[in-house]
Amino acid sequence: MALKKTRKDNYPEWYQNVISEADMAENSSSPGCMVIKPWGYGIWERIRDVFDEKIKSTDHENCYFPMFIPLSFFQKEAEHVDGFAKEMAVVTHSRLSMKDGKLTPDSELDEPLIVRPTSEAIIADSFSKWVKSYRDLPVLVNQWANVVRWEMRPRLFLRTREFLWQEGHTAHASAQEAETETKNMLEAYRELCEETLAMPVLVGRKPEHEKFPGAVDTYCVEAMMQDGKALQAGTSHFLGQNFAKAANISFVNKQNQSEYAYTTSWGVSTRLIGGVIMTHADDEGMVVPPKIAPYQVVIVPVIKKPEDEAAVTDYINTIVAELKKITPFGEKIRLKLDKRDRSSVDKFWEWTRKGAPVILEIGMRDAAAGKVMLKERIKINTPEAKSIISREELIDTLASRLERIQRDMFDAAKARLTSNIRTDVVTPEDFRAYFAQSNEWIEDGKTGKVAFVRGKWSGDPDSEALLKELKITIRCIPFDQSGTEGTCLLTGKPAKTDVIYARSY
Amino acid sequence: MALKKTRKDNYPEWYQNVISEADMAENSSSPGCMVIKPWGYGIWERIRDVFDEKIKSTDHENCYFPMFIPLSFFQKEAEHVDGFAKEMAVVTHSRLSMKDGKLTPDSELDEPLIVRPTSEAIIADSFSKWVKSYRDLPVLVNQWANVVRWEMRPRLFLRTREFLWQEGHTAHASAQEAETETKNMLEAYRELCEETLAMPVLVGRKPEHEKFPGAVDTYCVEAMMQDGKALQAGTSHFLGQNFAKAANISFVNKQNQSEYAYTTSWGVSTRLIGGVIMTHADDEGMVVPPKIAPYQVVIVPVIKKPEDEAAVTDYINTIVAELKKITPFGEKIRLKLDKRDRSSVDKFWEWTRKGAPVILEIGMRDAAAGKVMLKERIKINTPEAKSIISREELIDTLASRLERIQRDMFDAAKARLTSNIRTDVVTPEDFRAYFAQSNEWIEDGKTGKVAFVRGKWSGDPDSEALLKELKITIRCIPFDQSGTEGTCLLTGKPAKTDVIYARSY
Repeated sequence: MALKKTRKDNYPEWYQNVISEADMAENSSSPGCMVIKPWGYGIWERIRDVFDEKIKSTDHENCYFPMFIPLSFFQKEAEHVDGFAKEMAVVTHSRLSMKDGKLTPDSELDEPLIVRPTSEAIIADSFSKWVKSYRDLPVLVNQWANVVRWEMRPRLFLRTREFLWQEGHTAHASAQEAETETKNMLEAYRELCEETLAMPVLVGRKPEHEKFPGAVDTYCVEAMMQDGKALQAGTSHFLGQNFAKAANISFVNKQNQSEYAYTTSWGVSTRLIGGVIMTHADDEGMVVPPKIAPYQVVIVPVIKKPEDEAAVTDYINTIVAELKKITPFGEKIRLKLDKRDRSSVDKFWEWTRKGAPVILEIGMRDAAAGKVMLKERIKINTPEAKSIISREELIDTLASRLERIQRDMFDAAKARLTSNIRTDVVTPEDFRAYFAQSNEWIEDGKTGKVAFVRGKWSGDPDSEALLKELKITIRCIPFDQSGTEGTCLLTGKPAKTDVIYARSY
Repeated sequence: MALKKTRKDNYPEWYQNVISEADMAENSSSPGCMVIKPWGYGIWERIRDVFDEKIKSTDHENCYFPMFIPLSFFQKEAEHVDGFAKEMAVVTHSRLSMKDGKLTPDSELDEPLIVRPTSEAIIADSFSKWVKSYRDLPVLVNQWANVVRWEMRPRLFLRTREFLWQEGHTAHASAQEAETETKNMLEAYRELCEETLAMPVLVGRKPEHEKFPGAVDTYCVEAMMQDGKALQAGTSHFLGQNFAKAANISFVNKQNQSEYAYTTSWGVSTRLIGGVIMTHADDEGMVVPPKIAPYQVVIVPVIKKPEDEAAVTDYINTIVAELKKITPFGEKIRLKLDKRDRSSVDKFWEWTRKGAPVILEIGMRDAAAGKVMLKERIKINTPEAKSIISREELIDTLASRLERIQRDMFDAAKARLTSNIRTDVVTPEDFRAYFAQSNEWIEDGKTGKVAFVRGKWSGDPDSEALLKELKITIRCIPFDQSGTEGTCLLTGKPAKTDVIYARSY
């Protein structure tokens, strides 16, 4: 029973459909902002917990910094303010008063406050107080917070005015140590995307014109959505001494000389959920990888006659007790017994739309035979959609089944990514012809639609205008460079650098 | 080695001292806001995790609602906006532009946005979309978020312009069900304060003039600080149909009639950390209850000669491996091995100032004898401060020791609370004389300083002015009413209601 719009019908509408049918989020009456509903927020909580563990196991500590940044703090780093000035929410008053029968902003602030679009400016100020000597370094902190960027074309999860994220901020005694940190956290993002979200990514460096405002280098993980567009899933920035100079984060080094520290910052946001949707969801709705599913297994009782209820309930309770001992991925299983007063068919479809990895339907016949009906979400459109297995087999195999589902989801997405990076587009003419097409859904296991091109780039100043004209972007300069000579796909000039070209979210 | 200011010297300065010496938080350059540092944030994470489990186990689900609330939403509930209008951060512009060489707010919004001081107004709007039929009720949601109230006299943890909290919001089909929810969550707060924070509280209802703006009834948990002042630790509001009418949360009931829903809201914040400090900290610094200590046990190696290092490290590693299996309170132990390059004495004092419940000092002599030096934070000023125990005894008793420390901390605070509620002040004259004194530190195990008075209140309209004159407040109307007749301590009129009078934070 497909959604109102399938991926083929209308990809952007399908995306909205998936979210609303899975009840993950909705547009709010607060313009450009979203309400993240329990199923969407549950996914975020899982992502947060997994990555928080990584943050802590790599010696970072969580803090919380003010959301309001005095305007003057932004004046200190020119590139930084240029990059964000156009999309800043500005607090100018601290009360409301009645004026002519109308509630009106009152008590104007001496200095306007910016609602953080990112926290380098305010955290650098703290670092400047904390760091005096090389003994105080490194400083390794992180915060989970809301941030605001005044998006003019908001889209659930991908681009909303307010969103949730984590932002790591570190300060180091040497450039080398800071660069290592930047790359380590990029690797942590790759691992998060691939191993937890089952979302394969390309890793690399951003070209100069795509860098974070104020950074020396920006590294990124880029995923391919089912319509061949790229999604920037996470970024890690080497900030050099730019913010340290702006905020005076200086320290006395081992040679007893004063020096500016080297800082980094890195972040991933609720945008990842948009990436998960467009990596895994299908025409029936959402599909959540088991590692981040709020419920990995949902049990739907099927009670056809009232007199069956006691027996079915008893049987289910026994199974629940046994399943609770199971530890897929080495963790407590997340199990839901759906006892609501609705039909089992409605419940099945609801959990299918939400993308619960495994649904167990259990009725009188199953109770009598010691069996269960098991439905794997990722197999819903295949002949193996339903399987009746014994209770023993269920208990014995459920953990490995969830682990296999996670692997299968990654493998399928990885195959799509790999087979849709064109490397045979080698002339500017072919390149133009390729990107003259618009992005469409890439059917599972297929190639041929517009997606990524890996090819040469000269780094010429004309690039930006040409990219704009073609409505494409350079996603990254991959770490694995071939080193061969070739022709820049934008300008036709000789070029050596391999880049990934694509349209993007 | 006491702090610069003891509780007796200067109680407010002692409070600031405890926070800065424990490195829990500091004032930020963002006016009125604080930076919560790792040790403070770690305590908050523990409180959050414990209460989040409670929220979920009582069928509430986490969501996230926008932080920006359109101004017009506040106009819908008159009392609500009156209560908060004086302390609202107002966003009026969405970008910065250069004007006359100065960064200036630009692009004025059509409608100003309020940074949430609390979220009833915006959540009620969502509820109005979600609730159509009695089948959609109850709605039980919670969010962990930052909120802003424009405090003019900010104070770390107790009163900052931005703070962190959880806010639960629910909608029900009947007043009775909503009232039950309100009281259940109040009970959850009592449990959180007493069983997790080891902070005893009084529970009751707020008098009319202390209610949450827009509520029908506000219930609260009130704690007593070491200077006899009260701290409102959490509140739970029965909102009746006030917000439902304002935002049109209506539903078709079982009788097929349209009706407004009944809503509740309830919250606790980072203010609880201020309460924990003023309940448990002493003249040596912070004391953290084991249940919320980021580290329950800290191991400090004592290496006097370089040649001892290997043996001591080996011995410590064996102990760490054994201790990791211990599960105080039925949870994984939180253990820190402090390997930093500092003196063991400095480390001991640092962890003492931070209030780690148990510090283990382990050196060569201990390694040779199979012993450890154990220091319990709460005993630091007693002859039992240090004890040398065998490794076996340590392993066998550490979990129960931490559990006993938690209990002892609660018992001590409970004794202070109980013995400092005066019930023998029965005339307005004595009452005035009592509160003519100013609040001072109540030495452990002592009474006689200004603290709480439990006595009669007539509910007379003059009360507010009299309370202001005496600079005191009615903290709550306790649930356990005696029902006897008596004299109102404010007005001298006949009165039946028992209330708790106190100064407060």
